[in-house]
Amino acid sequence: MNNFQYKNPTNIIFGKDTIAKLAEEIPADAKVLMLYGGGSIKKNGIYDQVKTALKDIEHFEFGGIPANPEYAVLLEALKVIKDKEITYLLAVGGGSVIDGTKFLAAAGVFEGDTPWDILTNKKPTLQAMPFGTVLTLPATGSEMNSGAVITRAETKEKLAMGGAGLFPAFSILDPQVITSIPRRQLVNGITDAFTHVLEQYMTYPAGALLQDRFAESIMQTLLEVAPKVLEDPSDYDAASNFMWSCTMALNGLIQKGVPTDWAVHAMGHELTALFGIDHARTLAIIAPSHYQYNFESKKEKLAQYAERIWNVTEGSLEDKAYAAIEKTESFFNDMGIDTKLSKYTNEFEGTAEIIANRFTERGWLGLGEHQSLKPEDVETIVHMAY
Amino acid sequence: MNNFQYKNPTNIIFGKDTIAKLAEEIPADAKVLMLYGGGSIKKNGIYDQVKTALKDIEHFEFGGIPANPEYAVLLEALKVIKDKEITYLLAVGGGSVIDGTKFLAAAGVFEGDTPWDILTNKKPTLQAMPFGTVLTLPATGSEMNSGAVITRAETKEKLAMGGAGLFPAFSILDPQVITSIPRRQLVNGITDAFTHVLEQYMTYPAGALLQDRFAESIMQTLLEVAPKVLEDPSDYDAASNFMWSCTMALNGLIQKGVPTDWAVHAMGHELTALFGIDHARTLAIIAPSHYQYNFESKKEKLAQYAERIWNVTEGSLEDKAYAAIEKTESFFNDMGIDTKLSKYTNEFEGTAEIIANRFTERGWLGLGEHQSLKPEDVETIVHMAY
Repeated sequence: MNNFQYKNPTNIIFGKDTIAKLAEEIPADAKVLMLYGGGSIKKNGIYDQVKTALKDIEHFEFGGIPANPEYAVLLEALKVIKDKEITYLLAVGGGSVIDGTKFLAAAGVFEGDTPWDILTNKKPTLQAMPFGTVLTLPATGSEMNSGAVITRAETKEKLAMGGAGLFPAFSILDPQVITSIPRRQLVNGITDAFTHVLEQYMTYPAGALLQDRFAESIMQTLLEVAPKVLEDPSDYDAASNFMWSCTMALNGLIQKGVPTDWAVHAMGHELTALFGIDHARTLAIIAPSHYQYNFESKKEKLAQYAERIWNVTEGSLEDKAYAAIEKTESFFNDMGIDTKLSKYTNEFEGTAEIIANRFTERGWLGLGEHQSLKPEDVETIVHMAY
Repeated sequence: MNNFQYKNPTNIIFGKDTIAKLAEEIPADAKVLMLYGGGSIKKNGIYDQVKTALKDIEHFEFGGIPANPEYAVLLEALKVIKDKEITYLLAVGGGSVIDGTKFLAAAGVFEGDTPWDILTNKKPTLQAMPFGTVLTLPATGSEMNSGAVITRAETKEKLAMGGAGLFPAFSILDPQVITSIPRRQLVNGITDAFTHVLEQYMTYPAGALLQDRFAESIMQTLLEVAPKVLEDPSDYDAASNFMWSCTMALNGLIQKGVPTDWAVHAMGHELTALFGIDHARTLAIIAPSHYQYNFESKKEKLAQYAERIWNVTEGSLEDKAYAAIEKTESFFNDMGIDTKLSKYTNEFEGTAEIIANRFTERGWLGLGEHQSLKPEDVETIVHMAY
């Protein structure tokens, strides 16, 4: 097991009808900016629940944060924060709204030339405005971690930020919100969370027995509840396990003491930036090719995953490892997620080269748990995913 | 799944040679009281490591906190805290030293008549002096939770306290400390952590699939590493998994959203208070009888535990459930832990009645996950454990 440091101070308030407790978590004298997305919260009742909870706290609103939170839109929100002298941010949404809010929390106290520097200066964000979240879409784990990914349409870039200052002060997780989520987004959430676990697990054996089992526990639970959630999103038992699994998949715990990969995300982000493909779907496109390409260095963990998650007991270690990749791809396919880039765009030719070039230009030293994947490897993997 | 609230702000610094990082976690202008136990840290080198790390920070020492931290001894330490105007506490030890330090952290700012009120007023401790820990004995999880248990020899009482103010600011977990722990204490640690998981798991199915699997992950890992740790405490892989499992067994995570029992601890504490039996051993004495006595209400989870932890696949649900109790008792016995009170004392007659009477006198409304166990049930369970 590798050395690690772990601290996660986010206060999780989980369960039925917990949105009503919102005001208890925000200082009474705060000046709040409530941030949300495309307006679905106005149809499903969450907006009203939040407004009711905030009735005695001074607050403003900023809606319209898009999926893949867009820098230009966030700059408009930043203007509101400055103009209204906002002291507390409240994200009401999924990963995109929460990530956008994290950027704003950092930008609200940033003293550099331009807030874009937060994304490019490679410095951890240690100071930020306080903020909380009301999660409306389980998937990214952003409600209990200190990372965010921001998109800039102008330059077709999607960049990550993070740091100890970016943990939400609190997050409210009411599994009842799942009832009104469209199937497409539920499928994305399941795929996103499952792949988050894979990124922190599918590397090489590192003697971290408990972390491996925790990762496997999350995957087993997602596999168990996925059909139930998709069949009936109002199944509270299934919804609550789905929601908690998504949070635990990326709240930092399972990555402690182990090597992590994240190459699937790095390549996937480029597909979203280039083609606007849903984040989760880009992961499902890249993951099978990535595991095939890196088969030799990952086969021990692939085989363990085959045995413990997919109950593959027959065959050699390699047989099991291959079966695991196939079963993972089938899992995505069975939920209606295509795992080939050509199913999403006719303009796929040349994508592998474009992405490889971007990595070269950014001066990346190497992707994957060994930091060994060069732009030419990326090119091959993306090509395999056509 | 039940509603829950979860926040754990302790900063964990885990791994090889991490004690050297101690000073980074303590304010430079702090006036520190370093608290420790019977002096084993002076033999195994931990004392020297801590002193070296603290060389630039003003600090005092208080040694001699006994196993089952004794109120009278802690009052002496409290006097030092007041006299020296200590601002920060540092526990260097196992659960007893850490629990004692938590009591002192609370007592240092307590404004009631007598510090004993902290144990008896049934109020959560929200304010306390800041403190950190250097864990020398994995077992209790106290290094990452907000609870403590204090003993008072004068009245043969052992009482619990807790509250959000009692999370350590940081805890340093260096698995290398295990190398010098005597076998008896290692066995106690394994038993204690394993029973902690059982207390939060062995109730009734509550639809908390992920929490169940996390609990099972910890038990599986403890079972896997126990023989290795006992065979060779310098096996770092085994030691690190043992240490992290003990912490995760009682840092609050696996109890969220599920019913918990804790009757084994409640009865066990009495055996320690009456006879001075090691805490972990009292749990091993009580647990089998407790599960047998409450078989009907626990049999579903006992059977799940039998299947997933002990690989019992044959027989009826009841058969599996019984087998699970037997296997648990054998696990303790195989490590050299006796599971009958009469193996520890010849004075066992009447113990069941004494303990039942104590519960009656304290006005306990009922033990267990259903709060349904009355003093007469306690009497029967303890009797079964003779």
